[in-house]
Amino acid sequence: MSGRLDVVGIGPGDAALVTPAVSAVLEAAQALYGYGPYLDRVPPQPGQARHASDNREEMDRAVAALDAASAGAHVAMVTGGDPGVFAMAAAVCEAIEHGKPEWRTLEVRVHPGITAMLALAARAGAPLGHDFCAISLSDNLKPWEVVEQRLAAAAGAGFAIALYNPISRARPWQLSAAFACVARHLPPEVPVIFGHAVARAAEQVVITPLAEAAAQPASMASCILIGTRQTRVVPRPGLPPLAYTPRSFSA
Amino acid sequence: MSGRLDVVGIGPGDAALVTPAVSAVLEAAQALYGYGPYLDRVPPQPGQARHASDNREEMDRAVAALDAASAGAHVAMVTGGDPGVFAMAAAVCEAIEHGKPEWRTLEVRVHPGITAMLALAARAGAPLGHDFCAISLSDNLKPWEVVEQRLAAAAGAGFAIALYNPISRARPWQLSAAFACVARHLPPEVPVIFGHAVARAAEQVVITPLAEAAAQPASMASCILIGTRQTRVVPRPGLPPLAYTPRSFSA
Repeated sequence: MSGRLDVVGIGPGDAALVTPAVSAVLEAAQALYGYGPYLDRVPPQPGQARHASDNREEMDRAVAALDAASAGAHVAMVTGGDPGVFAMAAAVCEAIEHGKPEWRTLEVRVHPGITAMLALAARAGAPLGHDFCAISLSDNLKPWEVVEQRLAAAAGAGFAIALYNPISRARPWQLSAAFACVARHLPPEVPVIFGHAVARAAEQVVITPLAEAAAQPASMASCILIGTRQTRVVPRPGLPPLAYTPRSFSA
Repeated sequence: MSGRLDVVGIGPGDAALVTPAVSAVLEAAQALYGYGPYLDRVPPQPGQARHASDNREEMDRAVAALDAASAGAHVAMVTGGDPGVFAMAAAVCEAIEHGKPEWRTLEVRVHPGITAMLALAARAGAPLGHDFCAISLSDNLKPWEVVEQRLAAAAGAGFAIALYNPISRARPWQLSAAFACVARHLPPEVPVIFGHAVARAAEQVVITPLAEAAAQPASMASCILIGTRQTRVVPRPGLPPLAYTPRSFSA
């Protein structure tokens, strides 16, 4: 009996954004591992074991899933969004590199999903329509100075910026510091797009100028897009505005 | 009768990577607009009009689709990958901003898709597992100096880099120049991942050190990921290696 591990991204929340490839894995797997709130989004299957764990236990979760797959089970690791974007695929690879030799012979497959920045950009128009980057604001895993260097480099070079993990109870000041950092490189009117619970029932999308961004509420369920000097906001009568970054660069 | 325009991303090629939201639009729309090879991937529907156009006619295509929707049709604009990543969503927004006033009253909705870099990253492991950026190498729409400034900023600041539109008949030297540019900021052993026709029949994924990247074949069907100083390649007996960028930063 040979086990396997599928690492799947279930997207931002809406079942209509889960790819058929991921749905097929979720139906076939004998055991699911993941952060509790993500597992809660997966329709139950008779006979399928579920192992929910806390947000911060990524490495333990990867090890448990690899052990189960090594023992012969078909295991799915469930992540929100895309597994390769600030999620579990890197933790699984890291566990394989530093773990048991037999894990290197396992069939491991990563299945992409709709990551938060793409879902939010789609709602707003096309704010990531030109070159862009994705930065995690969490300084649990990297020094804050590195975050600021990257924000400055990206804003200075004209990338639109998607902020992941913008804020948490343990990291209350980082988001305001990030806005202050990019404001040293960008004019105050650059559009900032706040997405809260995008593609879920509580969805909210707000567009605000950079100068007022620090006053906007944000939470762990937020993804935030910072535009460029070129990003435009198009008002529409009776409809939300469209924010987009043109395909052509103009100085 | 009120028309609408849905801008949909059909992902990299595999039908199992098309979201149910996008499939529903493709079934319901009365007319499809898009680049011919993308339309060819959509199963035919009786009574559905199809308007294929060339790669370089983005603005004309957007205008035609907006006119058809304004006339009352349910129109879908079909793009590969994600519509918001170097694709048609920005062209549609641009057309709306500069076009007929009635286009601003149309219902326009963008539906995200799996973009090439996420499909390729999933195949390779998790090379975009930490901060990363996406850059189009096309200098049709921006000066080459801007491309080089952005490559240098991104490589210098430690972002993994996804290269879109790496090469074409009209742009034969830019990819080698891009590797030379990042090589001034990164060691020669940094892994570079070439994906050709990912999630299609002719898929090929090759991992090579940066020093040898310029010798690799590439085409318009390629997406290329350049790792960081932290990116690891884990060999596996009898299986392709796993490339990943660790979640934690270490200097």
